[in-house]
Amino acid sequence: VPLLLKATIAGIPERDKVAEDAARARFDRLTKPTGSLGRLEPLASALAGMCGRPRPRLARKVVVVCAADHGVAGAGVSAYPQAVTAQMLANFLRGGAAINVLARQVGAEVRVVDLGVLGGALEALGEIPHKIALGTRDLSREPAMTREQAERALEAGIALAERADVIATGDMGIGNTTAGAAVVAAMTGRPADQVVGNGTGIDADARARKLAAIEAGLARGVDAHDPVGVLASVGGFEIGALAGLVLGAAARRIPVVLDGLASGAAALLACALAPRARDYCIAGHVSAEPGHRVTLEQLGLEPLLDLGLRLGEGTGAALALPLLDSACRLLDEMATFDEAQVSDR
Amino acid sequence: VPLLLKATIAGIPERDKVAEDAARARFDRLTKPTGSLGRLEPLASALAGMCGRPRPRLARKVVVVCAADHGVAGAGVSAYPQAVTAQMLANFLRGGAAINVLARQVGAEVRVVDLGVLGGALEALGEIPHKIALGTRDLSREPAMTREQAERALEAGIALAERADVIATGDMGIGNTTAGAAVVAAMTGRPADQVVGNGTGIDADARARKLAAIEAGLARGVDAHDPVGVLASVGGFEIGALAGLVLGAAARRIPVVLDGLASGAAALLACALAPRARDYCIAGHVSAEPGHRVTLEQLGLEPLLDLGLRLGEGTGAALALPLLDSACRLLDEMATFDEAQVSDR
Repeated sequence: VPLLLKATIAGIPERDKVAEDAARARFDRLTKPTGSLGRLEPLASALAGMCGRPRPRLARKVVVVCAADHGVAGAGVSAYPQAVTAQMLANFLRGGAAINVLARQVGAEVRVVDLGVLGGALEALGEIPHKIALGTRDLSREPAMTREQAERALEAGIALAERADVIATGDMGIGNTTAGAAVVAAMTGRPADQVVGNGTGIDADARARKLAAIEAGLARGVDAHDPVGVLASVGGFEIGALAGLVLGAAARRIPVVLDGLASGAAALLACALAPRARDYCIAGHVSAEPGHRVTLEQLGLEPLLDLGLRLGEGTGAALALPLLDSACRLLDEMATFDEAQVSDR
Repeated sequence: VPLLLKATIAGIPERDKVAEDAARARFDRLTKPTGSLGRLEPLASALAGMCGRPRPRLARKVVVVCAADHGVAGAGVSAYPQAVTAQMLANFLRGGAAINVLARQVGAEVRVVDLGVLGGALEALGEIPHKIALGTRDLSREPAMTREQAERALEAGIALAERADVIATGDMGIGNTTAGAAVVAAMTGRPADQVVGNGTGIDADARARKLAAIEAGLARGVDAHDPVGVLASVGGFEIGALAGLVLGAAARRIPVVLDGLASGAAALLACALAPRARDYCIAGHVSAEPGHRVTLEQLGLEPLLDLGLRLGEGTGAALALPLLDSACRLLDEMATFDEAQVSDR
């Protein structure tokens, strides 16, 4: 294990119990029945524990969209041509994609990171050069990447966890629900058929090819106790970077709001490398992909939203950010019974 | 039936199918897989149909908090003393309550309306004089109000549906989950035991008193085909006003985001008076009150959020407002495949 990865894993602190308890205690003094804000109360308390502040505020919001291409796209597993990955990156940089709209609404910055998109024109436009290779190899035929590339993807993600009070994870990569589902199957032990979905909207034939591709990849043998090996064999560069992002954020006490399948697969890898990373993860939503629900169950995370999204890009995470803000603002701004001279029960 | 109520019911238009279809068609040209925004797509299309605009924006957001006291509070059905209704109104007007915090976050105005709060000091502070009486009578012993008072409450609510692109409903009134559950039982035919909950957090003894109070009220006989009679017998002034608010908003093509049990009971009354009003209702959330889930099933509304809230005030509706904004902004601001030069499938 390379040095930065090792140090990051070792450096993830426990949540701050003092701040968390202080938040909980304050909620009980606010002008509302005890517990009546439902899940927003433990959400705000958890954020207090993550940030180490009894009344946290999440001013700097960043959506980190990790993008890469996938060799397995050549196996006919997607409804869209592979060129769409690069085209959508250009769309992100011009502000026309769904994630741009949602980020503008909630006042979040979108950082687009090219971990391995085919074609080179985007380096000029993209902000951070993190390209590992021009797409992975076809995971149905051979390992998607080398172990060294997997480690580089993880370390690239660690470096991205900065300048933020909260990070939302996002992904782009034609073919990446195939890689994502393969990682989920490998890390949970579920049969591929239970975690494979229709991605961007494929037909039954394409789904059969997708399932066969995943099963072929898994047939090389995967070991859930070796997350870096799983990533190298059946993962993707953006999935690796997202796993690193989760680790880096946890090490820096930054809450991470997870998006859909790719982010969930990444969180499974991160939490296998460092179980304590889970304490910094919030499930923004549960997507329409069957593998995502399985992932959240394995992580023990309850999603904030369930709106049937299956877009990626960080959209489901960005949609949940106002709920985090609400939880923090309620904790911070509501009057206490004493202040408002309201009779307690 | 008095004139304003009759005219309002007759004046509720169908949703604008042309605007709704235009919204749906536009979603299919935006840079995302078809249908991948899940429930946000039909939500935005429905809003287009309600507003009669193919790309609606919800600039003026208003939370209308209707407040009143309940004679049944004297039967020991709440965890809080009745004085809390008036104290919380003062808290609303000073900006210290949960609904104030959430409204500030989403840029909504809070309008507090006193339909029948005990005590008179608030008239000086409150903005709109709509007081019908100093609380209802005890619904467990006699009808909560006269039929004329019920009609006045409905008409007061109709008048409140103005100066807004979207309205969130809110309520305050110690004892009003008793009245709300009684209305739900009357309008759905469910046994009281299936719709009664723990309100602000009552113990088993208080719950038994609450159930007995509701059953005593219902035993006088209620007819779901006479919603005004149900309101008069077992409802509350704020529930009547909220029902009128739903009718008035529908007549003016203003989408209504419903909060919890009191708002849901009001929507049941409104939709019994004018079934088309349902086309303008959005369920912001489902609360922890068992009667609320029953209500949404009866209305055929799927809640946007399920966070275990049981506070009222409009909090669950206000929390959903950013999702409505997101749906409208995505429809309006995303690039099309042509504009972004992204390959369609």
